[in-house]
Amino acid sequence: MKDLYVVIVGCGRLGSQLANALSRLGMGVVAIDSSDSAFSGLSRAYSGFRVEGDATEPAVLRAAKMDKADLVIATTRDDNVNLMVAQTARTLFSVPRVMARVFDPKRERMYRALGIEPVCPTVLAVEAFMNIIRNQEDKADAS
Amino acid sequence: MKDLYVVIVGCGRLGSQLANALSRLGMGVVAIDSSDSAFSGLSRAYSGFRVEGDATEPAVLRAAKMDKADLVIATTRDDNVNLMVAQTARTLFSVPRVMARVFDPKRERMYRALGIEPVCPTVLAVEAFMNIIRNQEDKADAS
Repeated sequence: MKDLYVVIVGCGRLGSQLANALSRLGMGVVAIDSSDSAFSGLSRAYSGFRVEGDATEPAVLRAAKMDKADLVIATTRDDNVNLMVAQTARTLFSVPRVMARVFDPKRERMYRALGIEPVCPTVLAVEAFMNIIRNQEDKADAS
Repeated sequence: MKDLYVVIVGCGRLGSQLANALSRLGMGVVAIDSSDSAFSGLSRAYSGFRVEGDATEPAVLRAAKMDKADLVIATTRDDNVNLMVAQTARTLFSVPRVMARVFDPKRERMYRALGIEPVCPTVLAVEAFMNIIRNQEDKADAS
C-alpha cells in the first residue's frame, strides 16, 4: 500500500481502532474529535496527530490539513455529522476518497451516489449473526 | 435449516432486521423491546410475536417463552443489558444457543468463556473499512 494521508473524524471505538491500524501501516493519520478524552483510545504506538474540535466547522478541518488528505473517514455516532463532514471533504476540500460509517442502511445508496463509500455496522452485524446461525445449522445437519 | 424458535431482545435496527430475516426463513420469532415504537421496524411479512417489556425482568422473558427457545439473540444498544439477558438465557432458561451484540471488543473473550457468541459491529466495521482501503490500493498498484 502507498503512504496515504488519512483524516479520521470521530475518535470513538471505531475511529481510534482505524487510526491505530492505519498508523501501524505507516500512514500519516490525523484523528479529530470534539472531546479530548476520546483520544485515550489511541495506542501508544499511534504516531499520528490529534485535533480537538468540532468537525462540522471548516476551520477545524483546515487545521487537520484536510486539503492534503488522500482519504477521509467519517466515523462519528451521528449519521448527519458524518454526511456533512464527508460532503465537505468531497466538495470543499476535493478529497479523492471519502468513506463514512452509516447507521441507517437506507442511506447507503444515497451516499454512493454522492461519491461516499458507506460502511454500515448494522448490516455487517446482521450478516454476521445470520452466518453464525447458518453455519451451526449446517454442522447440526451434517452430524 | 431446521425450524428454530428464536427470541430476539431489542428491536432496534439490528434486532428488527434479524427478526425479519429469520421470520422470512420460516422460523418462529419473538421480538422483545421496552418501547412499542421499536416494533415499527418489523416488516409486513413478519409473522412472529411482539412482547413489550423490560427484558431484564425474568417475567418478561417468561412471557416470551424463553424456556422454549432454541436460540436467543441479545441486540440492545447496552452491553450490560445484553450480557444480563444472555446470561439469564443460559443459566435460568437453559437456552442451548445464545448470541449477543457487543460494543466493547474487549468483552468478546469473556462472552465466549460464558458460552455466549459475540458479534461486535465495531470490529466488523474496522475490517470493512480496512478491506476497502486495501482493495482500492491494490487496484491502484495494478493499474
